[in-house]
Amino acid sequence: MFELLFQKFDEKIGLTEDEKELSKSFFIPKKLRKKQYLLQEGDSCKYVAFVEKGLLRSYKVNDKGAEQIIYFAFEGWWISDHYSYLTGEPSEFNIDAMEDCELLLLSRQAEEQMLEKIPKMERFFRILLQNNLIATQKRLFSSLSHTAEERYAELIKSCPTTLPQRIPQHMLASYLGVTPETLSRIRRQMTLKVR
Amino acid sequence: MFELLFQKFDEKIGLTEDEKELSKSFFIPKKLRKKQYLLQEGDSCKYVAFVEKGLLRSYKVNDKGAEQIIYFAFEGWWISDHYSYLTGEPSEFNIDAMEDCELLLLSRQAEEQMLEKIPKMERFFRILLQNNLIATQKRLFSSLSHTAEERYAELIKSCPTTLPQRIPQHMLASYLGVTPETLSRIRRQMTLKVR
Repeated sequence: MFELLFQKFDEKIGLTEDEKELSKSFFIPKKLRKKQYLLQEGDSCKYVAFVEKGLLRSYKVNDKGAEQIIYFAFEGWWISDHYSYLTGEPSEFNIDAMEDCELLLLSRQAEEQMLEKIPKMERFFRILLQNNLIATQKRLFSSLSHTAEERYAELIKSCPTTLPQRIPQHMLASYLGVTPETLSRIRRQMTLKVR
Repeated sequence: MFELLFQKFDEKIGLTEDEKELSKSFFIPKKLRKKQYLLQEGDSCKYVAFVEKGLLRSYKVNDKGAEQIIYFAFEGWWISDHYSYLTGEPSEFNIDAMEDCELLLLSRQAEEQMLEKIPKMERFFRILLQNNLIATQKRLFSSLSHTAEERYAELIKSCPTTLPQRIPQHMLASYLGVTPETLSRIRRQMTLKVR
């Protein structure tokens, strides 16, 4: 259950076997079936979740009742509503499972205790936040000044190669902020270009 | 020169007078005249800058040669290209002064040394990154699913009240990702609604 998480730790910080064993005690293993919620709008976000297996999405329902997908989280990624997690305020977002998932949950309190017991982890979470910030900034820039076609190409590049099989078209369209019809047109054009 | 920075430290962590004195030694005071660059596209971003006085912007020149403003930094805010700062890669962004500025610069090396000498600072920079991430995520959501009018209202709300006098209209338009003509129309409509 912890293989992928430990691999991520190893990529960024050097933990001893004892520290790895200790770190396990702070995470809560959790399975979600497809379509189950990890977080519902209006609830406070109690955990950050590491995805050992499966795929989740975070989304918001806008004033017109449409789902706007903010983020997909694949194996090896983290997902949470950071604002709600940190402040305890009710979340404006939903997080649900797009496939059967195996997660490792970390509560605020467990995170604080883990940082206290294993100070190297401060570094791990700072790097994680930095990378998340960089990715979000890139996406913001791209949403402001790239076309939907360019943004689709960027998404395909940044995600696992299995993405097109794993994410339904209408969800990809919602992530890109375009209608499903526009996405179909983009995909047709891109296929024509490749030929 | 350090009043505002120390105020920010006090809001988030408790530093002793000795620690504050020590922290000064890691920052490089720097004055920029209006229109001078802190960072130019293609250079590596060597510093994060704290704004004691003045106003800066970060922007990118897109494929069509137009400036896309990503971020404004007022007094008490930080500005940098985090990706370039962390990786040493050439930056895709420009940062320049929109007014005469007084800055406190922190290099990677100085930051690492400061974190080592004053471990409480880890917490300060983690909180800073978290807040930055939350703000960027909000802005991303808003760029994906709010109208330009809603985004303009959010900007006005989140910035100092002096914003309209300090930022030229064409730069506000660039930040919002709309043409100056669209921004004028939005402002006229908002004025009519207020009356």
